[in-house]
Amino acid sequence: MSLPSFLRRILGGGHGGADPRVRELARLCDALLAESGEYASTALARDALAAWQDLDERLRDEFFDVLATSYSPDAEALKGAAGAYQADPSNDSLLALQRATESPRRELFDRLNMAAGGTAALVEMRKALLQKLKARPQWRVIDYDLRRRLRSWFNRGFLRLERIDWHTSALLLEKLIQYEAVHAVQGWRDLRRRLESDRRCYAFFHPQLPDEPIIFIEVALTRGMSARVQPLLDVSAPVGAPASADSAMFYSITNCQEGLRGISFGNQLIKQVAEDLKREFPHLRRFATLSPVPGFRRWLEKSAPRELVARIEDPAWHLGEVPEELEKDLMRRCAYYLLREKQDEEPLDPVARFHLANGASLERLNWMGDTSESGMARSAGLMVNYVYWLAELERNHERYFREHLVLAAPAVEKLARECPPQGQAAA
Amino acid sequence: MSLPSFLRRILGGGHGGADPRVRELARLCDALLAESGEYASTALARDALAAWQDLDERLRDEFFDVLATSYSPDAEALKGAAGAYQADPSNDSLLALQRATESPRRELFDRLNMAAGGTAALVEMRKALLQKLKARPQWRVIDYDLRRRLRSWFNRGFLRLERIDWHTSALLLEKLIQYEAVHAVQGWRDLRRRLESDRRCYAFFHPQLPDEPIIFIEVALTRGMSARVQPLLDVSAPVGAPASADSAMFYSITNCQEGLRGISFGNQLIKQVAEDLKREFPHLRRFATLSPVPGFRRWLEKSAPRELVARIEDPAWHLGEVPEELEKDLMRRCAYYLLREKQDEEPLDPVARFHLANGASLERLNWMGDTSESGMARSAGLMVNYVYWLAELERNHERYFREHLVLAAPAVEKLARECPPQGQAAA
Amino acid sequence: MSLPSFLRRILGGGHGGADPRVRELARLCDALLAESGEYASTALARDALAAWQDLDERLRDEFFDVLATSYSPDAEALKGAAGAYQADPSNDSLLALQRATESPRRELFDRLNMAAGGTAALVEMRKALLQKLKARPQWRVIDYDLRRRLRSWFNRGFLRLERIDWHTSALLLEKLIQYEAVHAVQGWRDLRRRLESDRRCYAFFHPQLPDEPIIFIEVALTRGMSARVQPLLDVSAPVGAPASADSAMFYSITNCQEGLRGISFGNQLIKQVAEDLKREFPHLRRFATLSPVPGFRRWLEKSAPRELVARIEDPAWHLGEVPEELEKDLMRRCAYYLLREKQDEEPLDPVARFHLANGASLERLNWMGDTSESGMARSAGLMVNYVYWLAELERNHERYFREHLVLAAPAVEKLARECPPQGQAAA
Amino acid sequence: MSLPSFLRRILGGGHGGADPRVRELARLCDALLAESGEYASTALARDALAAWQDLDERLRDEFFDVLATSYSPDAEALKGAAGAYQADPSNDSLLALQRATESPRRELFDRLNMAAGGTAALVEMRKALLQKLKARPQWRVIDYDLRRRLRSWFNRGFLRLERIDWHTSALLLEKLIQYEAVHAVQGWRDLRRRLESDRRCYAFFHPQLPDEPIIFIEVALTRGMSARVQPLLDVSAPVGAPASADSAMFYSITNCQEGLRGISFGNQLIKQVAEDLKREFPHLRRFATLSPVPGFRRWLEKSAPRELVARIEDPAWHLGEVPEELEKDLMRRCAYYLLREKQDEEPLDPVARFHLANGASLERLNWMGDTSESGMARSAGLMVNYVYWLAELERNHERYFREHLVLAAPAVEKLARECPPQGQAAA
Repeated sequence: MSLPSFLRRILGGGHGGADPRVRELARLCDALLAESGEYASTALARDALAAWQDLDERLRDEFFDVLATSYSPDAEALKGAAGAYQADPSNDSLLALQRATESPRRELFDRLNMAAGGTAALVEMRKALLQKLKARPQWRVIDYDLRRRLRSWFNRGFLRLERIDWHTSALLLEKLIQYEAVHAVQGWRDLRRRLESDRRCYAFFHPQLPDEPIIFIEVALTRGMSARVQPLLDVSAPVGAPASADSAMFYSITNCQEGLRGISFGNQLIKQVAEDLKREFPHLRRFATLSPVPGFRRWLEKSAPRELVARIEDPAWHLGEVPEELEKDLMRRCAYYLLREKQDEEPLDPVARFHLANGASLERLNWMGDTSESGMARSAGLMVNYVYWLAELERNHERYFREHLVLAAPAVEKLARECPPQGQAAA
Repeated sequence: MSLPSFLRRILGGGHGGADPRVRELARLCDALLAESGEYASTALARDALAAWQDLDERLRDEFFDVLATSYSPDAEALKGAAGAYQADPSNDSLLALQRATESPRRELFDRLNMAAGGTAALVEMRKALLQKLKARPQWRVIDYDLRRRLRSWFNRGFLRLERIDWHTSALLLEKLIQYEAVHAVQGWRDLRRRLESDRRCYAFFHPQLPDEPIIFIEVALTRGMSARVQPLLDVSAPVGAPASADSAMFYSITNCQEGLRGISFGNQLIKQVAEDLKREFPHLRRFATLSPVPGFRRWLEKSAPRELVARIEDPAWHLGEVPEELEKDLMRRCAYYLLREKQDEEPLDPVARFHLANGASLERLNWMGDTSESGMARSAGLMVNYVYWLAELERNHERYFREHLVLAAPAVEKLARECPPQGQAAA
Repeated sequence: MSLPSFLRRILGGGHGGADPRVRELARLCDALLAESGEYASTALARDALAAWQDLDERLRDEFFDVLATSYSPDAEALKGAAGAYQADPSNDSLLALQRATESPRRELFDRLNMAAGGTAALVEMRKALLQKLKARPQWRVIDYDLRRRLRSWFNRGFLRLERIDWHTSALLLEKLIQYEAVHAVQGWRDLRRRLESDRRCYAFFHPQLPDEPIIFIEVALTRGMSARVQPLLDVSAPVGAPASADSAMFYSITNCQEGLRGISFGNQLIKQVAEDLKREFPHLRRFATLSPVPGFRRWLEKSAPRELVARIEDPAWHLGEVPEELEKDLMRRCAYYLLREKQDEEPLDPVARFHLANGASLERLNWMGDTSESGMARSAGLMVNYVYWLAELERNHERYFREHLVLAAPAVEKLARECPPQGQAAA
Repeated sequence: MSLPSFLRRILGGGHGGADPRVRELARLCDALLAESGEYASTALARDALAAWQDLDERLRDEFFDVLATSYSPDAEALKGAAGAYQADPSNDSLLALQRATESPRRELFDRLNMAAGGTAALVEMRKALLQKLKARPQWRVIDYDLRRRLRSWFNRGFLRLERIDWHTSALLLEKLIQYEAVHAVQGWRDLRRRLESDRRCYAFFHPQLPDEPIIFIEVALTRGMSARVQPLLDVSAPVGAPASADSAMFYSITNCQEGLRGISFGNQLIKQVAEDLKREFPHLRRFATLSPVPGFRRWLEKSAPRELVARIEDPAWHLGEVPEELEKDLMRRCAYYLLREKQDEEPLDPVARFHLANGASLERLNWMGDTSESGMARSAGLMVNYVYWLAELERNHERYFREHLVLAAPAVEKLARECPPQGQAAA
């Protein structure tokens, strides 16, 4: 009666109306689960993963439906354990309840992972799952189990930081070109420039995915804090001497694995890279980002006076001379947006949220910091420097979590104070 | 009201009467847990592990007590989720109940693992825990959480098989000398002989413990199936030519990490090593163990006639000429013990259980196979060859799990049939 | 009196009228040589090499002049030893004469090599030397010493064969793009195609030049023996399955280090690669080149009737329909050129010389095998397959050296016999 | 007429009366040399080396005789070139003479080296050669050629320094146990103590002999400059904290390859290790040796008064109380021996010669610094600290070579001055 459903299926009928290929895959999963733990067969795991990889999108959806319904904990047994715990919340009944909540699904993921390439395949599986999760809330039980497994396997203790440069394999470098989302790489020549001696690139790797970066960051070693990103991306810019640099500018950070969404490592990456750079170049005095303000333009459209919105709808508005009062107006509104606009007590802007939670502080707004199409479209051309003072990160981070205090330089504070009330034109 | 207890402690009092060093450790754990997930500090993790490693045995016990009581799921919240599920066992209420059963303890282990050396420290922690778990059943909730973490991190997909030979580091070889429990290594000269060209040694390794074998196996390449272990262990035995060997004899397998008890890899190791050897030496025709019968002597003492028991109590009983009827009698009783004596349908003998479950078959009993002190004391000098026919392992393994059939050669079956009824002397 | 000249310079004046920078470099060389052998300073070696690398072309020429005159063996001492040997050619006088012929130059190269990067710098130095050696025969004494050193350091026993693929570092792959001389690489996309699974690329490396290939070879795995090179170079050609290939076509081999000219490894490379491929793909039946006939067109211009030469001077002569008799005529002349035209008993064509000396045989002429500009200009569009029958290489190679026999397939022999007499038009 | 002798042999008779196995080896060598340079066969090289390795001592001697006579330069051709040079010592005649002095022997060694394991085999061959070279001066022409090859291949630029510790392979560590000649290693426990964290061990390696150290050095990190070696060698001495050490004591340096005698690297090793240690432990203030005085006792026997010699012939003379005047007398004589006794202007003591030539200075004599049997027998129990002041090594080394100045501390100078005249008893 309390047999797990997959065992009942093995003895009885199987997975109802599904496509034969999905039924075959479910049969492999059942067989894999039927094994006694330590004897579970890597051959079955390999076959099941191969069968999954052969499914097209429609059949994968079918399989997710099966996974969401047939591999949950046994409801009767769980109800019983829940009742027992309510009656007597002892350590023993807690243990029994914890065991009863564990789904065969989670065990299935553990066993699939045993196959060669299993980890990569499960990261891919979650990517496919996430793409439709909003539309299929019933799959959230799958994501709960799969994310738990991935979170455990990708524990930060298992990641290693590696520098990426021109000595790195072409296979890996090609992936950087594909993955880089913030400032797209324009072919190998562009990539090569980004790996010259006045640049640095680092990534986190997992032992099971040796050729796949998890997340990577690009850094420029500069004299003075960069205000604009186009000079940093200029393929023909002369290569600077890293020894004479005083600033490390983090100008791009990219999460590579869609299937690991919500399992974040970015903050660790920045801190570790900053510490490594400090060791290599003790004369570096400033670690700062050159970051977009990705929600600014959308926010402007909702909150700014119609004339302003209309004005910057002209794709050429920033070319030629821009009136000083327009620049001032936009800078003030941007400062206000970053410092005052909130979502659940935290800054509305996702990039600000990320860096401030890391313990960085908002140092400077940069007019026409990114004049690329996307820079204009998302950030109205503005960019921000968030500064990482290594000695203060922990304290800032704590304060941020206690008080949600947005640390900003006085000049930025002043801009925010000067911002005209929402909906009103600048005086 | 539903605040986790560790948060209440941070706001309120702390961990009652415990020693200051334990309280300090608990405070570090609380601080580590108080961080928002992705920002959890590796520095705190490192400090907490260092504090734990500094505790003596008594204080570690105190800390385990704290861990067992203060880091469980919040009882009120869990009762609520249990009730909701009972009322409506939907996917949503299942998710809520699963979340509610997750203990802060498990999260704590995840975060401790982020520190350098974290995995090794947690394996050590479980070792300490297991040593007293029988006497302190209230710690089982700790073991439940810790074992789950370790089981996930030591997923077989993450282990890699490595050959160990005289090119291996002294650091690692020294550990083999320490760990080898079946046939103790008598110093470096003995070890060197076990790594000569007619021997093989393999181990499983985990990326986080590069200098620690998880489990290792020793193999002798021989002509004919070895019946006795002493010649295999003879330090001055001439080195044979592996090219002329037809058998691979697995004569020792050792689990190295006490803290990973119950997370077993032995069966995978044997299969993988057998396949690797077959590739390297295609002419190998037989893969077999030379195994002890560790429960035989104890079983004899309970089941055999008093005269027989008395006779083999003389430590010298096997020296000189042994009467043929005594040899026959013991061989029959041993066959009976292995084939007929059960524990929950499975063979009573743990070594038989292990190999038969792997899909091996019991090929031969060997008289005076191990005349060492421990061989006489545990197995009355007998040894067994379990044969691994690679092509039949899967099928045998399945049959074993379905029918608990004990596969044995006809000669062994015959011996078991000839065994006199329990308690009676041989005819 | 018999002091080496560099010692006299140290005590006395120095290197006459040379530029101060050349004098400074010579001073460093003298100081390096003045050290007692085993104590020679790597710091001095490093400074001397750096000084050399800073010289421009004119000053390097000046330095070579100094090197050719001031670092030869002491003439008086050598005359004495020569006389002593003539008088009594014993082992002792031989030893004395051998010692007297050793130039300080050779010792200087040994000591320069001790610096980090020394080997690479000396390879570069020889490259600079060779570029003007014809015009400056007095430098041949430098080349004699330098080539001896390089030949010893680049002994084939020190080279290791490595496969190059998409896992290789971008740094190295970029060098292939630069060095490939036979069929130029059109950027990264072209290179990537040449490293797909139906292609192979191998290179020889020296431990002191880890990022510099010495020589590399490109191979295509094909069904049937390729007759034309353009399909092999087609970037958008579908990737074939190596498992179904029966031929390995060596279509490009490139010496990378101009400074190692005359120290050849090509023949070893082909043999070793063929053996490696045979191990990986036992079903490969044929190892053959697809080679140019680089001297054919030039030879035609001297030996063929004027009308023929004029005809193929039209850059478009091969476009559209080519009359059958023209094709026949050119094929016959090419066969004659390859089989009958000699330079000191060996084939006049350098590529034929190379492969035939390796023990390969001339298997087939391919009409319009290379229609690229350079293929038309040098080989009149023809290409040759030289076949490497692994089992016969040694024997063929020996015969070639004894008899200079040109092994060719009967069809090629027939073509050569049908060739009209030189200077005459085809019948 | 000017055919090399080995070619005449191939065409004509062969190697006269030698044993068939030696003749077969010579035949292989001839065949190897008969190949045209770049096509020389690695298979022939391998066979020739295998044939050599199979010879016993007597046959190796025979082969050396063949090598010394049959593979020298052609005498007639050499006489001609010698005459031409005498008549006109131009660059061209120099080149011709240099070519004529090159023996086929040297080319043979080059070609043998192409085989896998060739370098190691040739190092072994020279070891065998050196063992009898004094008795067979006619072999010196072999040694000249072989040493030149080895010297070129083992150019210091090709060696890499590696730290040896408990992570090193057992294979290599076992070799340290075998090779250590200064202070013999008493098994694995002793070796392990020498590799603890307050000790360091470094070796030079060559790419072709990855498992063979060329030379290695042992260092102790201590507080204060060690005066006695026994405490350093004490297996049960507690492990010190390297962070609190102020001195690095070089207490043993061992050349491992007898076949590389005369191709020395010791001085480079000391300097490089000292620099590495200085980087790792910036607080180290003193780099010094603890060295024997290996020639002292023998010198004493020749130069000291009979009573003194007789006195220290008693093996127990140093046990119990030693009269102060005896200690003073021996210390003075030892200082005199080190500072005043010469061999060709350099110190008579070989260890003093080595360190002083390196640029070290003689800092201190240590009474009863080495009370081991060999320490008493060779150095009368005394040991010396030579100090390496990194900043002054170059200058000291130069002065030593110019003036053969023996740098010593004032206290040692004073001892030397107080020494009674040779042959006389102390006053």
